[in-house]
Amino acid sequence: MTRDHQTVVDGVLAGDPRAIARAISLVEAEGEAAAEVIKGVFHRSGRAYLLGVTGSPGVGKSSLVDQLVRAARREERTVAVLAVDPTSPFSGGAVLGDRVRMQAHTGDAGVFVRSMATRGELGGLARATGDALVVLDAAGFDLIIIETVGVGQAEVEISRRADMTIVVTMPGAGDGVQALKAGVMEIADLFVVNKADHDGADRTVAEIATMLGLASYGPQVWRPPILSTVATEGTGVAEVMRTVDAFRAHDSADFGRRRRLRLETRVRQLVSQHLLRHVEQHGLEPRAFAGILDRVVATDLDPYTAAEHIVSGALGPQAQRSDIG
Amino acid sequence: MTRDHQTVVDGVLAGDPRAIARAISLVEAEGEAAAEVIKGVFHRSGRAYLLGVTGSPGVGKSSLVDQLVRAARREERTVAVLAVDPTSPFSGGAVLGDRVRMQAHTGDAGVFVRSMATRGELGGLARATGDALVVLDAAGFDLIIIETVGVGQAEVEISRRADMTIVVTMPGAGDGVQALKAGVMEIADLFVVNKADHDGADRTVAEIATMLGLASYGPQVWRPPILSTVATEGTGVAEVMRTVDAFRAHDSADFGRRRRLRLETRVRQLVSQHLLRHVEQHGLEPRAFAGILDRVVATDLDPYTAAEHIVSGALGPQAQRSDIG
Repeated sequence: MTRDHQTVVDGVLAGDPRAIARAISLVEAEGEAAAEVIKGVFHRSGRAYLLGVTGSPGVGKSSLVDQLVRAARREERTVAVLAVDPTSPFSGGAVLGDRVRMQAHTGDAGVFVRSMATRGELGGLARATGDALVVLDAAGFDLIIIETVGVGQAEVEISRRADMTIVVTMPGAGDGVQALKAGVMEIADLFVVNKADHDGADRTVAEIATMLGLASYGPQVWRPPILSTVATEGTGVAEVMRTVDAFRAHDSADFGRRRRLRLETRVRQLVSQHLLRHVEQHGLEPRAFAGILDRVVATDLDPYTAAEHIVSGALGPQAQRSDIG
Repeated sequence: MTRDHQTVVDGVLAGDPRAIARAISLVEAEGEAAAEVIKGVFHRSGRAYLLGVTGSPGVGKSSLVDQLVRAARREERTVAVLAVDPTSPFSGGAVLGDRVRMQAHTGDAGVFVRSMATRGELGGLARATGDALVVLDAAGFDLIIIETVGVGQAEVEISRRADMTIVVTMPGAGDGVQALKAGVMEIADLFVVNKADHDGADRTVAEIATMLGLASYGPQVWRPPILSTVATEGTGVAEVMRTVDAFRAHDSADFGRRRRLRLETRVRQLVSQHLLRHVEQHGLEPRAFAGILDRVVATDLDPYTAAEHIVSGALGPQAQRSDIG
């Protein structure tokens, strides 16, 4: 390990905010440095509780997260917030906004806030998010809140990283039915109807209850509660925190199972990545790849057969027959 | 190839709707059958124009797509619609809705409609969407409309499969700014403000124009137009079609580049998949993998080192040093 990366690792384990920020930047870049950081800090991970907060833009997720941070701090729990945002090339607005918003906690060493943005494909963000959670976990935060922007499939993917997921909505805007359509109902362990002082809050609660009523739950199964909040005023936030703790107590058996599944996914991703790199270094000479690709573009060769050629070139012909399919 | 799959391939190449539907189900399952179907039909692909239509739920994408189908049919172009939806375990509502909606075109052999839903992780949907587009392309459709639900990162990912992307929005609901936040501005080749008879349509157009104004475009660069429609009445749809054709003409140089990039991504995915399968068959005995995973769960071993062990076991120790990083 380079001395620089060792310093970062030591800093993360000591809970130094600058080292944590640097470590997250390194895992975002997904290179050798990411591997070194995770190798260095992983043995101290596995203790934090990961709470996902998702919902459409504008429903007040940020205010709710801010209140949850305050509530956790009142109980002397340390909190990290990881705000996962897509990037626009037109502005760094979303990222900047999250930082500005959390400045209320500046100076409190028990709170750490970080935004992560999509630069390339979604898979990269999901991988980097997983590693960033390991960094924050190893840094000793009791609670890590993963806030996502929007309610798309990306958010569903990222919510799989959490131990519990809160889906936030608000009265009106057809959010009840639209949330169903966007496929987020299935990931909710708790629904929060924020801006509950707006007209139609009761109807939104009723709509969600109706949709949940369509699903069948076994006797031992957690049925997602529906809570109302006015996050800007702190109303209802204590009940949200109590429900988070209740779910955590209820769910202790599943907690380990989910963590194992997350780690399995991560190991498989890394295996796949290493193998691809092996092929690129040993079997996939750039000009040869371009030549194969030319034939695919000309529709002389289909992508599946092209991949078989490449794999068999990299592993030797004995690998080809048994691997394809 | 099995006789059944050969029949499917022949049917797709003959443009038979039932064979096309079956072929898409096969590629959704991502197994040996998917490989056989794509191998059989790929040589006839590469002719269709792929038009992505995305935007928040409720803005009227479905109505607009329906009108675009009608407009294309008036010009005697054949059209396939691939509606890509996340699934909810609570109902098949979204998928069903899309099917019901397009029944207007039942009996017109020049129109094919299909919904695809997320079953597992997003990557699977993206891969299957790519293969489904190859099937529809090989079946001879002139225009393929890829309609996505929502404006998340998933949609950005899927829009990369399209030759052109229309971002649909509507007056109010803060959609202008929220669309920016969700990172969809960068993927738009054309903005459509639908429900333009609603209050605030002019403001929405102005907001988008302002945001576009912040970006700089070179003299030869396509600046996304902003059009207004009332899709339920067909108002403005002809202009949308004209703009699609104008973009296509403008973009002919980039068309080939984008297609090459898509195919390159697909080949790399398949190579990676084959290699992972190789490891699972030759180097990753299930009990050994479970043992390694146990150590990761116990934080005795980090995921990166675990992946290195697995890869070196599968490829032999000489592969280890050079691949890792």
